[in-house]
Amino acid sequence: MAKNLRERFSKAIDPYNAEFVASVREDDRLVPFDIQGSIAHAKMLAQQGLISHDERDAITHGLQKILAEWQAGKFTLDPAYEDVHMNVEHRLTQITPAGAKLHTARSRNDQVALDLRLWAAQECDAIIGAIRTLQDILGARAQQHEKVIMPGVTHLQHAQPIHVAHALLAWYDALARDASRFASCWERLNVSPLGACALAGTSLPIDPPFVARELSLAGAFSNSLDAVGDRDFCVELTVACALLMVHLSQMAEMLVLWSAPEFGYVELPDELCTSSSIMPQKKNPDMIELVRAKAGRVFGAVSELLATLKALPLGYNRDLQMTKGPMFAAADTSLGCLRAMSLAFEKLEVNVARLEQVSHNSQMLATDLAEYLVRKGVAFRSAHAAVGQIMRHCAERRQELARLSLKELRRFNPAFEKDALDLLDPRVSVARRNSPGGTGTDQVRKRLAGLRGAHGE
Amino acid sequence: MAKNLRERFSKAIDPYNAEFVASVREDDRLVPFDIQGSIAHAKMLAQQGLISHDERDAITHGLQKILAEWQAGKFTLDPAYEDVHMNVEHRLTQITPAGAKLHTARSRNDQVALDLRLWAAQECDAIIGAIRTLQDILGARAQQHEKVIMPGVTHLQHAQPIHVAHALLAWYDALARDASRFASCWERLNVSPLGACALAGTSLPIDPPFVARELSLAGAFSNSLDAVGDRDFCVELTVACALLMVHLSQMAEMLVLWSAPEFGYVELPDELCTSSSIMPQKKNPDMIELVRAKAGRVFGAVSELLATLKALPLGYNRDLQMTKGPMFAAADTSLGCLRAMSLAFEKLEVNVARLEQVSHNSQMLATDLAEYLVRKGVAFRSAHAAVGQIMRHCAERRQELARLSLKELRRFNPAFEKDALDLLDPRVSVARRNSPGGTGTDQVRKRLAGLRGAHGE
Amino acid sequence: MAKNLRERFSKAIDPYNAEFVASVREDDRLVPFDIQGSIAHAKMLAQQGLISHDERDAITHGLQKILAEWQAGKFTLDPAYEDVHMNVEHRLTQITPAGAKLHTARSRNDQVALDLRLWAAQECDAIIGAIRTLQDILGARAQQHEKVIMPGVTHLQHAQPIHVAHALLAWYDALARDASRFASCWERLNVSPLGACALAGTSLPIDPPFVARELSLAGAFSNSLDAVGDRDFCVELTVACALLMVHLSQMAEMLVLWSAPEFGYVELPDELCTSSSIMPQKKNPDMIELVRAKAGRVFGAVSELLATLKALPLGYNRDLQMTKGPMFAAADTSLGCLRAMSLAFEKLEVNVARLEQVSHNSQMLATDLAEYLVRKGVAFRSAHAAVGQIMRHCAERRQELARLSLKELRRFNPAFEKDALDLLDPRVSVARRNSPGGTGTDQVRKRLAGLRGAHGE
Amino acid sequence: MAKNLRERFSKAIDPYNAEFVASVREDDRLVPFDIQGSIAHAKMLAQQGLISHDERDAITHGLQKILAEWQAGKFTLDPAYEDVHMNVEHRLTQITPAGAKLHTARSRNDQVALDLRLWAAQECDAIIGAIRTLQDILGARAQQHEKVIMPGVTHLQHAQPIHVAHALLAWYDALARDASRFASCWERLNVSPLGACALAGTSLPIDPPFVARELSLAGAFSNSLDAVGDRDFCVELTVACALLMVHLSQMAEMLVLWSAPEFGYVELPDELCTSSSIMPQKKNPDMIELVRAKAGRVFGAVSELLATLKALPLGYNRDLQMTKGPMFAAADTSLGCLRAMSLAFEKLEVNVARLEQVSHNSQMLATDLAEYLVRKGVAFRSAHAAVGQIMRHCAERRQELARLSLKELRRFNPAFEKDALDLLDPRVSVARRNSPGGTGTDQVRKRLAGLRGAHGE
Repeated sequence: MAKNLRERFSKAIDPYNAEFVASVREDDRLVPFDIQGSIAHAKMLAQQGLISHDERDAITHGLQKILAEWQAGKFTLDPAYEDVHMNVEHRLTQITPAGAKLHTARSRNDQVALDLRLWAAQECDAIIGAIRTLQDILGARAQQHEKVIMPGVTHLQHAQPIHVAHALLAWYDALARDASRFASCWERLNVSPLGACALAGTSLPIDPPFVARELSLAGAFSNSLDAVGDRDFCVELTVACALLMVHLSQMAEMLVLWSAPEFGYVELPDELCTSSSIMPQKKNPDMIELVRAKAGRVFGAVSELLATLKALPLGYNRDLQMTKGPMFAAADTSLGCLRAMSLAFEKLEVNVARLEQVSHNSQMLATDLAEYLVRKGVAFRSAHAAVGQIMRHCAERRQELARLSLKELRRFNPAFEKDALDLLDPRVSVARRNSPGGTGTDQVRKRLAGLRGAHGE
Repeated sequence: MAKNLRERFSKAIDPYNAEFVASVREDDRLVPFDIQGSIAHAKMLAQQGLISHDERDAITHGLQKILAEWQAGKFTLDPAYEDVHMNVEHRLTQITPAGAKLHTARSRNDQVALDLRLWAAQECDAIIGAIRTLQDILGARAQQHEKVIMPGVTHLQHAQPIHVAHALLAWYDALARDASRFASCWERLNVSPLGACALAGTSLPIDPPFVARELSLAGAFSNSLDAVGDRDFCVELTVACALLMVHLSQMAEMLVLWSAPEFGYVELPDELCTSSSIMPQKKNPDMIELVRAKAGRVFGAVSELLATLKALPLGYNRDLQMTKGPMFAAADTSLGCLRAMSLAFEKLEVNVARLEQVSHNSQMLATDLAEYLVRKGVAFRSAHAAVGQIMRHCAERRQELARLSLKELRRFNPAFEKDALDLLDPRVSVARRNSPGGTGTDQVRKRLAGLRGAHGE
Repeated sequence: MAKNLRERFSKAIDPYNAEFVASVREDDRLVPFDIQGSIAHAKMLAQQGLISHDERDAITHGLQKILAEWQAGKFTLDPAYEDVHMNVEHRLTQITPAGAKLHTARSRNDQVALDLRLWAAQECDAIIGAIRTLQDILGARAQQHEKVIMPGVTHLQHAQPIHVAHALLAWYDALARDASRFASCWERLNVSPLGACALAGTSLPIDPPFVARELSLAGAFSNSLDAVGDRDFCVELTVACALLMVHLSQMAEMLVLWSAPEFGYVELPDELCTSSSIMPQKKNPDMIELVRAKAGRVFGAVSELLATLKALPLGYNRDLQMTKGPMFAAADTSLGCLRAMSLAFEKLEVNVARLEQVSHNSQMLATDLAEYLVRKGVAFRSAHAAVGQIMRHCAERRQELARLSLKELRRFNPAFEKDALDLLDPRVSVARRNSPGGTGTDQVRKRLAGLRGAHGE
Repeated sequence: MAKNLRERFSKAIDPYNAEFVASVREDDRLVPFDIQGSIAHAKMLAQQGLISHDERDAITHGLQKILAEWQAGKFTLDPAYEDVHMNVEHRLTQITPAGAKLHTARSRNDQVALDLRLWAAQECDAIIGAIRTLQDILGARAQQHEKVIMPGVTHLQHAQPIHVAHALLAWYDALARDASRFASCWERLNVSPLGACALAGTSLPIDPPFVARELSLAGAFSNSLDAVGDRDFCVELTVACALLMVHLSQMAEMLVLWSAPEFGYVELPDELCTSSSIMPQKKNPDMIELVRAKAGRVFGAVSELLATLKALPLGYNRDLQMTKGPMFAAADTSLGCLRAMSLAFEKLEVNVARLEQVSHNSQMLATDLAEYLVRKGVAFRSAHAAVGQIMRHCAERRQELARLSLKELRRFNPAFEKDALDLLDPRVSVARRNSPGGTGTDQVRKRLAGLRGAHGE
């Protein structure tokens, strides 16, 4: 039974209603942020003469005690006090009578907005750290296999040979954008809403910028109504997670494919695999499949948040409580999946021999022949057409491109000369595809050198 | 540490991997269904001579014991055994050595599909029951306020007076469609997948239709590969919940509006309201707002499921584990919100005096005048135009339609006669709008009589 | 400029507003349904004496003329008349003055609800037809390759050998559920809302069941408020499309994988492939990839509809206009993708030799050995463990299971006898996995025989 | 029929396939960006000696001619040439043989990525401009009604009186965040992918940074594989639109409510309203309702994009084509709705008298009394409780707070003195709620002064 704040009512709260509206389960993780915010608020109240310095100290010590209790598992939120805010205040008032003064010039509306921002700021940090760990592992694996080549694909069809390192560094770059998005999100949420009170500010002499400084936030809100209703940062954080999960799901998809027997490009070690309850031979990449699937969880969180926020009336509405769950789920999922992918990329075994073998599909070198013709002065579209006819010739005869003679090549375009045949080697192709940002050996080496000791965004 | 099924591996499972892939938290609610399915499976194995009758009895008693332990809170799922299936099997084998024979001719792939179908079937029942409770309450309130009228709106603008009962019965009908969708969902999921094994069936002589009959399911699967990969029913159940939540969110929106002071149509009793931590006068409909918001949770679950299932390879993939969470959340949310809305509609106070007052906006009777002209032989489009001009005349003078004289009316169309003025009373309008399914007094009375003792789908 | 219905206003409509609210682009496809509904409505009006028989005939002929004009591309919707309804009425009134009587006792609110239901009913039919075509093609291909086997997979890892036909028939069954969902959707939408008028019915003596019968709909609405606001059927139809697209995207994924060179299981013919603008050798399965991607379009339509409908006020709101676009897109996408997949499955070449070769991975036969031990009386869990150790032995030595001697097998379990070795052939394994619904040769043959001349739902 | 690039194939493309894969409808708007990118590419090719200066000039003039043709409606994309790229190249080659050299060292994969980025950059600009227009209108209306007060609400229940300007400026601030998000999005997309070619760069001597400089982009890509597969910017732009639509839908909701007769706070002018086809008196805010609904369209686009991108293989896949539609729809919808809301806020009539009247609900002043007690030294929680009891006293007697005598107040807390009664006036309350960012008169005036001539982010 929620026992508080009901002086205005002639009846106790209905038990089902109390249970239905309580948010103590989601709120548990907010305890440290609620306390941190309240300490800053108490300092401000004291500075402004709204409480005494003794009261401030009693409140601060009381709150620190509650934090210690929570860390020790001895302070748990009771649905009878609805949410983290009333639970902390109730406990504080047991510790010190000054607790009854803490809620001066604030409301749960601005308080929860602050708690969520402090939590989100910390989460941005944690996720950026986990992204960098994964980037470092990708960089180290790229370094380790610097010379190994593999078939580059488009549409999952063999396109051109590339360095394995080039593929790994593609993901490195995608992750750099992710880190940059979490940083943007952090910058925009870095504002203290405390002092907006319920919706309109207060007639008491408060100092919101002081609170912001105490909490190392960049500044205070500029409009109290906006400050209590704004959950843009929840959406931004969740969307940053969703894009991260797009990338992780794409990486997971490739690991699932590459470890399928038909590919055989990589193998996950036994400790990262799971077996079957019926088929004794199975070695399944469950962990990786779950990363792929968990993208769905985060995408769902985005839909949930947007639908929840749509067309809400101005100011605070209880609907805003439902922004906690999806944001928390998105961040938890992202951190968990980053760690799983770090494990996977750290430990997977690259089947170098298989990659070498499959890279010798000389059909992938058709573009090298077309570019050769361009260097001989042939217009690219004509070069492409000539080589296209060569490839059709090969396809109809099921013949390797590398087995064609110069004479055969010249039948399709007389500009071919002997040195064209030298190009029909995947290592030559990779080495020569050396335009800036390309897969060329020197390009990749330069890029790897640039990684050492730095992050790439 | 997952300790099972790893004979094939040379290394123990990585602890983080074990934690990441375990589904014990979601699986807890599946315990009774897993046991129910296993008992049916053991009976089939015994009938087919794959285990002895003594083994069947030992297994059955063991499983019943585990169920009792679970109900008493003494059997909890251990992540070391990954999921509900291996936990139950592990505990069973402690109780009886016959437990080691239970997994004959089945896989966790068909087993989890069965558990989820049994759970979903029960949930369809529970939700249909909760829908009927809410329908009954709506019907009873409609009965209670049979004679009260209110402004019917389109675009939230006053349109035509209607019976309050007509509005309540509109929701009654929407809920009837919801119940019908859960029934359709139940019909399609009513199939046993047990015996599909991992993907391909088995070389052992099993009898899947026997298992289906034991479980009161309509039949057994027809293709083993489809049986283990099919999660259509999860989507169907979640979507049925989503449409239900569309309706509940619309009902919640109206209660929020109607209890706003500007409307003042209804008042929620104190026990269903919450106050403010700063504003001592506040009486807020938090419970109702949360119903509105929780629609977002269920919509998110739909997005999550669809994204998770998209483009999965044929057969079982671990991604399917992620269909549990959203389906469970959708059903829990739906049941919780049905109960909250039942409470609200049961206890809300209808402000009859306010509804009477606001219903006397005679501008809402314009259509009655147009229909009058039609009865006098005027083409509807001309009648509409004439009354439109009358309404413009009123708007420019800020004049009530009911205050116009016959002379004034006739200026716009000479077909108006004295009896036209009699129509300009909201009660007359409501009583006369008596077409089948309309808000007319007799129509509504007939509909209410039809409800007694029956559900409307 | 919308020129109609503005007698009540003192100002013409703002041009941007007129453009913003017009729905003529989406409405074009509704023309035949709007006309069909209006003809039925006119017949009812005449039967009820609200218009004369001559007026009815003039209206009917006028509407048929407009339909012919539309079919000939000579009647196009003009944004100045906002929507299909006012465009048709305006044109009709040009043809016959009786047109001004057509809108008697109806509103655009019930009219558009009827048009959309008539359209949706037709679309359900069309989609069910296209599903059956694809099922027939799958059945025919399964028949053609009745004897070919392939590796069955779970987690994309080789699991057990299966018949190619078994895989194709798994999709056949999934499609049967899709057809059944469209049929359920059709049944629930099969109701005429005409006569609900704006929200409350009418004071004129109408006969909604007559209209329903004229349109071959199962019945008329029971509550006018619900009838005009109900868009459940739009969501149901769109969701049925979404689940269909889940299946088509999964089929597309497999075709993309199977036609990747590492798999080489199938090849799409040249006419269904696309090349690259730079790489002359490329043969890309663009059509199939687009089927996979277009699932996203339909999932988005589901999110769009749910978010749009959430928390709408009771009765008609203009928001409902936005239910047209997503529903139309979902149906168009589904039909287009069904046709693309039909083409693909009709024309793809199965690489039988490659499938034979890759099916000879005897590691897939481990379960056969475990089931052998069960037949010898070994508890399944022990059998699984013993074979698991065998598989680890093989994995560490990179040895084929089929190369093990009886002596080696017996080292792991003494129950192995000479006949165990006979099982280590994929054709034997497939033939014996003959439980109901399994991949066993007889099972598949029986299933194929059952398809001839019938659909499987 | 796509006639191009098929030298490699032995069969013409299937007509249905050609239609299915063509993207000419979406691509039309890309024509100017495709041409802009091609001109920059041609300059680079000439600088690098890959084409002659004459060829460059011929190409440039040809492309400018095509642009002019397109602007004049004389160049339309033909599905036979699949997409914008091949259509422009085909037309260019008709104009000059040098056209056959334009595709040197590029692929459609990097080309379309460039086109989309150039389009998106322009769109960010346009949307930011439209946001600022709406902000200016909100600022001007706030200025105009600087002194008008209204009930501030939480949970749609009267909370505290506020300035109308404070509400309008809350939206101003939310829009400032939106503008900031489009700016962040623009910054991250401001990279040229041209020169990545199909996936791996080229063996020809190109200069991607030159192209970036020509196009005023901040730099060139760093990894070719990432450059062709990256569609993060499509998601970012669409999500920025989604958050904007969250805000516009919230503003729309308030205008719908405020113009409902029960509120009567504002009235939309006739030219922004629509009537009913049956009810001659109706004046409906259709335009505003459509803004609310169109949020759903954009949310759907987010779901669509995320689902489409999930688990795609590394590099370019045709699925990426499906990122165009949702991004275009999101931007079009956002611009359209910004314009609609600008019209609405520019033209709506504020019913000052009604706002004055409804602001005199003195129950909203309860917090002022509690803050009074705090200034008298009462702990806030006790002050809140005392005033809560006062409010219950009022509620039970249906009494206005402002009608209580000092004696009555003192019964609940003896700290009340005569000056407490002075607070019970909404104008006094608003004026005194003067904390930074609050609704206090001076605060709002200061904020309005700050707006003049500047934007608030």
